[in-house]
Amino acid sequence: MPLGEFDLIERFFHRASPRDDVLLGIGDDAALLEVPPGQVLVAATDTLVEGRHFLAGAPAESVGHQALAVNLSDLAAMGAEPAWALLSLSLPDADADWLQRFAAGLFALAGQHGVALVGGDTVRGPRVVTITALGFVPPAAALRRGGARPGDVLYVSGWPGEAAAGLAVLQTAAPAGSGEPLVRRYLFAEPRVALGRALRGRATAAMDVSDGLLGDLGKLCAASGAGARLDLDRLPISAQLARRHSPQECEQFVLCGGDDYELLFTLPPVGSERVEAELAQSFALRRIGVIEAGAGVRCMRGETQVTVSGGGYDHFA
Amino acid sequence: MPLGEFDLIERFFHRASPRDDVLLGIGDDAALLEVPPGQVLVAATDTLVEGRHFLAGAPAESVGHQALAVNLSDLAAMGAEPAWALLSLSLPDADADWLQRFAAGLFALAGQHGVALVGGDTVRGPRVVTITALGFVPPAAALRRGGARPGDVLYVSGWPGEAAAGLAVLQTAAPAGSGEPLVRRYLFAEPRVALGRALRGRATAAMDVSDGLLGDLGKLCAASGAGARLDLDRLPISAQLARRHSPQECEQFVLCGGDDYELLFTLPPVGSERVEAELAQSFALRRIGVIEAGAGVRCMRGETQVTVSGGGYDHFA
Repeated sequence: MPLGEFDLIERFFHRASPRDDVLLGIGDDAALLEVPPGQVLVAATDTLVEGRHFLAGAPAESVGHQALAVNLSDLAAMGAEPAWALLSLSLPDADADWLQRFAAGLFALAGQHGVALVGGDTVRGPRVVTITALGFVPPAAALRRGGARPGDVLYVSGWPGEAAAGLAVLQTAAPAGSGEPLVRRYLFAEPRVALGRALRGRATAAMDVSDGLLGDLGKLCAASGAGARLDLDRLPISAQLARRHSPQECEQFVLCGGDDYELLFTLPPVGSERVEAELAQSFALRRIGVIEAGAGVRCMRGETQVTVSGGGYDHFA
Repeated sequence: MPLGEFDLIERFFHRASPRDDVLLGIGDDAALLEVPPGQVLVAATDTLVEGRHFLAGAPAESVGHQALAVNLSDLAAMGAEPAWALLSLSLPDADADWLQRFAAGLFALAGQHGVALVGGDTVRGPRVVTITALGFVPPAAALRRGGARPGDVLYVSGWPGEAAAGLAVLQTAAPAGSGEPLVRRYLFAEPRVALGRALRGRATAAMDVSDGLLGDLGKLCAASGAGARLDLDRLPISAQLARRHSPQECEQFVLCGGDDYELLFTLPPVGSERVEAELAQSFALRRIGVIEAGAGVRCMRGETQVTVSGGGYDHFA
């Protein structure tokens, strides 16, 4: 069913704003938005390309979810409160069914986090989705990659690697069966927005694991001008992952898998156990190492340093 | 020359910020930006797809310019001061020469308007460029589409239609010759940022002409709950346009051509001649009609209403 651009925007994306800080939303040349006094704007943008970031024929609900989730994860990594999003949608055709399901996935996640869609652009072209997410944070509370210091304790949230294992289920076209929960973790991974806010004033550094824990830890270390010791024996291996894969495969998924939007963060050594205990009441998290002087990541199995293959994901490598 | 994603960002897009309101730019999960007290954030996003919004093989400098210009034009139409941009770049390969020229076009325009590139995403895929432009405006001074009232005088800036005629030169592969200035107007159209600011507190409504004057005027009328009389005899026809085209063709270009980012705006009738004279000292503008009660656009040739074919551009029509 072909739809005009303006019908299309009106029909699927023009919804009443859940926020009173949207002075003007979709429908004019630009949106007008009020950042609360004393806070700074936080802005991130991420693009998903069909066949690269999501599978051709992926459920449209999942594409809508992922396009927003990857951006909310960036805001979470800054400790920000998400508020608004702009959507650019390039589509080969105005397929009303696909759009309805895409919008359902997008708005379901937006609703969970109180995010208003305030603008965008719809064009004909290859299936490419770009979202810009905007939020805010008190400037002194913003989490950055570069704040880790030697001695800081290193943590990761949740169950990294599950999404990559879910993608592998889809890619091998194996009967999903016991893989279903992993597939769902891939298609509808949850950004750790509440954890990001809880880390304000606590974490010395944070970033989201979007390209794989090992590669992203390398980036956190580089930004902080430090190194890290990563204790492989302490990596969180989920029951779902262990049920389908060997310990070696599990470790590879946890170290090199992306797409589950977990947070990697550091706490100062003094009081870290108390903060860890407080956070653990609300969030899954695991202490996996420590920041060191120097540079680079040392992977340790017990007291033996080992070499791990596979790094972060680089689109042009 | 293949480049890694991180090298690529570093090499072409990571430049010292020209603005001290960028607390954190490219290199972390998100940017941290300070909106001045008493102003609201203005946000717009637009996407260019190769083969649709720019020709395959278009000069990379022009693609970089256009991707930012179309967004700055949206901010101009709100009366906003542009400040920051986020770039999402999907490219089939990391061609260093193309990237260098794309960045040159982008940063040349950004520099003219004091805009800092504060974030983005580079991915492999079809050649698709999305920019989100952010700026600010005192909330009471923001220009909207919906503020025109019957009796308001209707204006357009500059020389609409020149860009479309320039595109036609490129598409017909005619020897450029006397078409060169028009081609340049298409490839490097200037957003009317200064005019937008000058319209603060003066214009009752404004929008940019991105999809054709006639269709966009219809949108301004619809948003304002009014109609308009458009005097075809008063349309600005540039000397460049008249040199290459018949009067009928010129009119068609002016009414239906997009891509030159002129502003369509209305002034209240009382004092409009004085304001027009003030604005005309700095900007090219032309009174082309008047807002009326009712709905829709009446095209008048003298006192005779005529039908004009061709409306705005709709990607999915």
